[in-house]
Amino acid sequence: MAARRQPIEYTDASTEVRAIYDDIMATRNTDWINNFWKVLAHDPPTLRRIWSSIKEVMGPGALDPLVKELLYVAVSASNGCHYCIASHGAAARRKGMTEAQYSELLAIVGLANETNKLVTALQVPVDERFL
Amino acid sequence: MAARRQPIEYTDASTEVRAIYDDIMATRNTDWINNFWKVLAHDPPTLRRIWSSIKEVMGPGALDPLVKELLYVAVSASNGCHYCIASHGAAARRKGMTEAQYSELLAIVGLANETNKLVTALQVPVDERFL
Amino acid sequence: MAARRQPIEYTDASTEVRAIYDDIMATRNTDWINNFWKVLAHDPPTLRRIWSSIKEVMGPGALDPLVKELLYVAVSASNGCHYCIASHGAAARRKGMTEAQYSELLAIVGLANETNKLVTALQVPVDERFL
Amino acid sequence: MAARRQPIEYTDASTEVRAIYDDIMATRNTDWINNFWKVLAHDPPTLRRIWSSIKEVMGPGALDPLVKELLYVAVSASNGCHYCIASHGAAARRKGMTEAQYSELLAIVGLANETNKLVTALQVPVDERFL
Amino acid sequence: MAARRQPIEYTDASTEVRAIYDDIMATRNTDWINNFWKVLAHDPPTLRRIWSSIKEVMGPGALDPLVKELLYVAVSASNGCHYCIASHGAAARRKGMTEAQYSELLAIVGLANETNKLVTALQVPVDERFL
Amino acid sequence: MAARRQPIEYTDASTEVRAIYDDIMATRNTDWINNFWKVLAHDPPTLRRIWSSIKEVMGPGALDPLVKELLYVAVSASNGCHYCIASHGAAARRKGMTEAQYSELLAIVGLANETNKLVTALQVPVDERFL
Repeated sequence: MAARRQPIEYTDASTEVRAIYDDIMATRNTDWINNFWKVLAHDPPTLRRIWSSIKEVMGPGALDPLVKELLYVAVSASNGCHYCIASHGAAARRKGMTEAQYSELLAIVGLANETNKLVTALQVPVDERFL
Repeated sequence: MAARRQPIEYTDASTEVRAIYDDIMATRNTDWINNFWKVLAHDPPTLRRIWSSIKEVMGPGALDPLVKELLYVAVSASNGCHYCIASHGAAARRKGMTEAQYSELLAIVGLANETNKLVTALQVPVDERFL
Repeated sequence: MAARRQPIEYTDASTEVRAIYDDIMATRNTDWINNFWKVLAHDPPTLRRIWSSIKEVMGPGALDPLVKELLYVAVSASNGCHYCIASHGAAARRKGMTEAQYSELLAIVGLANETNKLVTALQVPVDERFL
Repeated sequence: MAARRQPIEYTDASTEVRAIYDDIMATRNTDWINNFWKVLAHDPPTLRRIWSSIKEVMGPGALDPLVKELLYVAVSASNGCHYCIASHGAAARRKGMTEAQYSELLAIVGLANETNKLVTALQVPVDERFL
Repeated sequence: MAARRQPIEYTDASTEVRAIYDDIMATRNTDWINNFWKVLAHDPPTLRRIWSSIKEVMGPGALDPLVKELLYVAVSASNGCHYCIASHGAAARRKGMTEAQYSELLAIVGLANETNKLVTALQVPVDERFL
Repeated sequence: MAARRQPIEYTDASTEVRAIYDDIMATRNTDWINNFWKVLAHDPPTLRRIWSSIKEVMGPGALDPLVKELLYVAVSASNGCHYCIASHGAAARRKGMTEAQYSELLAIVGLANETNKLVTALQVPVDERFL
């Protein structure tokens, strides 16, 4: 029992896991599965639940698909999750994110973290107009 | 010397601070200053520096102005900064954010935090394609 | 059984808790106990352990007592702990912290959070000279 | 377009970026630029803005220069930013930080995080004297 | 459009939302809905998705139901989410959590945050036996 | 003076440090010391204080020893501390944690982080019953 779970490849996966892999590839119109899902596959109910949530939340809706990926990248950058920045950054680039846009996104993440801390430390009272 | 700094109103502000308030109002085309700036005004160099940063980072660029506000709201929501959610949420609404879009934004913030934690805890190796 | 534990006053405290309150007051040369200890008093072993740690870590050492309080305030501000900012801010002011110093401290906290996020998101490689 | 931006060396930098590198080296009285700036250089406006902020915030003021570095290291340690601990730790050591002081700093960071969490979870009411 | 969403009571809820409220009450064997769900009800797909996740993750499994609630409370306490501490704390108490157990839980949360920060700041290398 | 402190082996340790190593090994009924303690050993008072806290908090009490380790792992996973997940994960496995239980623990950590963020961003009012 190792501390770190290894990715489970399609050929080594159970029928249950393969069906989810198939749905991921079909939904994303690709023949490839990234490591996040292959590691989650050690726990099929979690694999199914998280994929189902990602499929629903990141699917068509009121926000533009690129904007959704930008938001995902921004939160992941704020949380310092390298894998998530890399995977959702790649998705954002496929959907059209330019390097200039990525630079602006990072600048916003950095500045928001600075002002979030100042506002909270200073306990700035919420303006009536914002209530 | 109180633990919590009170907002400094325009009429009570120094000439230096008034000049920054004036620039904020002119840039935003409004006659109103929100509490964040009025509390930062206790430290004029920080007031000037943060306003200068916000003006530059949130000004015209490669990303749409509404998208910039959405990113700011998302990071602030992820960090649990109520004032920042309220103030940038108001800015986003003025720029067109709908309630449906806000709901999707929050759903992405929540889900990104969930997967960020799973990915990090599981130390998922970054796929070669993402490098 | 309420969700929130109420402060336990000296007169209502057990002998065990009173002895710790006495040591806090003697060490700090005061006749007053702040709420943190009065709430921790619901769990005497934790009250004793945390007080013992604070007494040791914040006691005389290689760093100046004011600097120690400034560090405590900075970490608490970065973590958004209002009570801790208020209590350690009061201690820092008693030890000589000026409002100008507090303003600079907050500016550092804000900026460090901004650059911490940028550095981590960009995965800046550590320079050889720093290793 | 790679997920990770490589440092831009002086000889490969634009005139705009070189001018900022020159100012960093002149201000710090060194002939060397660390990787943080070389990676930020992919986005010259952010490079300029962050350098300008660091120069102002970490420059002469009400707090001792060493204390400023200690505060930066403490926040970076609390946030787990290895690069920032290494770079500001090196700056602190150049300004005189001893290993004993660094040990005390880390002890404060650890303990502040412990009490910050306890205080917040227990919702300790702020004492009147601290308001 | 207010910054803060108000709870939607059963009598004011749509058929879709009522069905989810009904399932929550049936699953929990209660006639009462707490505010988290009533606020999420402004976004029915998120209400459904989060409830479905909670129902699955917190339902019968390999861990004891009380242990599951303790883990939820511990993470919520570490994250400083008062509502979550209150709601999952209440659930844990219904399942048998004593005040002494809650005290120990909080002590672990505090200490884990302290050692997590020390370990990360010191970049302690993972022992071979743990790999 | 390097940025990263190396583990201090028993044979290289001072008498003071060896005595603490001895107590760790005796308490844990093992002949082995993990790197956390060997790195903390650069600062003997902190080594003693943290070990004393761990010994007290993780020792016999109102919560089952396995549950205590599970709580430690959960907080460490939520905080993204790989070393702590590895070391306390190993301790939890020695005390009986199964892979199925670890999967459920991670699912709770992920979901709690998601709902913690949603609850906080939405400022859900605490229900009267929870007060």
